[in-house]
Amino acid sequence: MDISIATKGDNVKLSEDKKSVILIDQTKLPNSLEYITVQTPGDLYNAIFELKVRGAPAIGIAAAYGIYVLARQIEADNYEDFLAEFREQKDYINSSRPTAVNLSWALNRMEQLVTANSDKSRAEILALLEKECVSIHEEDIAMCLAISEYGLTLIKDGDGILTHCNAGPLATSKYGTALGPLLLGKERGMDFRVFADETRPLLQGARLTTYELFHAGIDVTLICDNMASLVMKNGWINACFIGCDRIAANGDTANKIGSSAVAILAKHYGIPFYVLGPTSTIDMNCQTGDDIEIELRDPGEISEKYYVKPMAQVGVKCYNPAFDVTDHSLITGIVTEKGICRPPYSESIVALFK
Amino acid sequence: MDISIATKGDNVKLSEDKKSVILIDQTKLPNSLEYITVQTPGDLYNAIFELKVRGAPAIGIAAAYGIYVLARQIEADNYEDFLAEFREQKDYINSSRPTAVNLSWALNRMEQLVTANSDKSRAEILALLEKECVSIHEEDIAMCLAISEYGLTLIKDGDGILTHCNAGPLATSKYGTALGPLLLGKERGMDFRVFADETRPLLQGARLTTYELFHAGIDVTLICDNMASLVMKNGWINACFIGCDRIAANGDTANKIGSSAVAILAKHYGIPFYVLGPTSTIDMNCQTGDDIEIELRDPGEISEKYYVKPMAQVGVKCYNPAFDVTDHSLITGIVTEKGICRPPYSESIVALFK
Repeated sequence: MDISIATKGDNVKLSEDKKSVILIDQTKLPNSLEYITVQTPGDLYNAIFELKVRGAPAIGIAAAYGIYVLARQIEADNYEDFLAEFREQKDYINSSRPTAVNLSWALNRMEQLVTANSDKSRAEILALLEKECVSIHEEDIAMCLAISEYGLTLIKDGDGILTHCNAGPLATSKYGTALGPLLLGKERGMDFRVFADETRPLLQGARLTTYELFHAGIDVTLICDNMASLVMKNGWINACFIGCDRIAANGDTANKIGSSAVAILAKHYGIPFYVLGPTSTIDMNCQTGDDIEIELRDPGEISEKYYVKPMAQVGVKCYNPAFDVTDHSLITGIVTEKGICRPPYSESIVALFK
Repeated sequence: MDISIATKGDNVKLSEDKKSVILIDQTKLPNSLEYITVQTPGDLYNAIFELKVRGAPAIGIAAAYGIYVLARQIEADNYEDFLAEFREQKDYINSSRPTAVNLSWALNRMEQLVTANSDKSRAEILALLEKECVSIHEEDIAMCLAISEYGLTLIKDGDGILTHCNAGPLATSKYGTALGPLLLGKERGMDFRVFADETRPLLQGARLTTYELFHAGIDVTLICDNMASLVMKNGWINACFIGCDRIAANGDTANKIGSSAVAILAKHYGIPFYVLGPTSTIDMNCQTGDDIEIELRDPGEISEKYYVKPMAQVGVKCYNPAFDVTDHSLITGIVTEKGICRPPYSESIVALFK
């Protein structure tokens, strides 16, 4: 995979016959590149819940294509029945993961199209839905490119960048968010030295970020999450680039568990900490991070998953939050497709939407 | 295993016939409790290098018993040859791991006995060596108990404690250092709520700390290293208790990789951060942490070890430091068998030895 493959953005797509969504099964990486076909509500729910598709923007795109594929299957005699069944499917898919706002954002956008067109025929509504999910995808590609351009202004050739989890092409479409400036810079002949947190327990950094950057020819070094402090102390990091799953109106940012630790370490060592994501990740209904629900996952992901044998005392309790919230006071800037927000975020975020 | 078993201190011992050292193979825990027999220089080097015996004090005890067992095997005709061969063995064993001072401390103590008794017979020297290694072991037991008593004054019934890596009975003898106050308090009817960092890449927290505390009946919850920030933010932690591998004269402390991150997080959240260890861990030859050599280990420990399949892109670089240094400014207190040092450490550490 060269850069063009890394950024070709085929991790989520609609099948030719429009009857299914085709996804890269991210749980199989980096050992094999496999595609799965999603056709039923259960397929889609499980693909999201089991992280076969993951990354807030990619989840949104998959949900949009998915609800379109499911809407095509609705055999209703009238608009009310169609809408009722559409909403039932939507609520089910929306319940697959609670933290990333992009899931409900994309589903709501699709639903609004249905409710706004009650005078239209089933065929007309389906045509509008198809156009909408393609738009969501194309807009994400454009947003990632814009985010990458803005992000690239924050770093220079030769810089060391620390990233956590995976916010690259697999998590989004094409360039990605946190990894976007690095891929775009590489295309333009710049070199970076990237340190990728492995990101326990599900190892998105080890499995996906190293896969993407290695094949893009970018100098990437894998570290355990607990090594970030030493890497920063060594003077190897000029900036931290992190994705996001939900941003509150005050700038508090939910992202993969451990992101808040990276931010606290970065502040300690005087290193800028940037959040990169589309404005669709900003949830103005959340005043602060306290309003963001944090998903708790299976304890076995910590004690057993991926291992040959269990690696903890059998029966021991495990606490397994999938995300944490980074306080806005720790964030140097939030890089969106509309520009870079700086503190105070309660003002700069509002200004974004004007 | 009840508390008495956890603290019975048989993780390192001399065999009945004094011809070998018997060690719990810590790499097999928690799945099975197995003992290994160490008889040759290669056995001992590998047991330390491969972390079958680990934990700075336990390494010191194993090295002391080990060099005694090896000294018994020396077939020298005269004192000079005996000393030369002893030193050769000592240097070899000492090269097995560079960071923990206890290894060289115990070996030097044994060597000093040989050099101070050049007028004695081989049999007399061996008798003195046997007494010395038993003393090193017994002193460690007494030191762990004293450290546990001092540590217990820092916490109260019901407290939440975060620990990193393993500094319990397996890493030392009997009570342990960082876990000592918890085991001693439990014996006295106190209850604590412990959060154990799993401690990547070798999972000493997941494998060993949960094993020890679970069987001691202490409420323990396993977390990934990157979850410590959220656990602290949740208000669940009253103090951090950490072991140590080498303490510089100014209080800078080398301990398992990630310890410095815990200290920085604790400072951010206003939680006290304590280092617990015997005074033998203090190296007055190191002025600051910059003088402490950090062991770099095999990249495969991050990308492959323990896993069913490799969990990172094949060929990706990994940086795998085994330790980091926590700056003295982040340490609330250093708990030794002689009392608790407080800042300024350059004064309180010197006072310890008066």
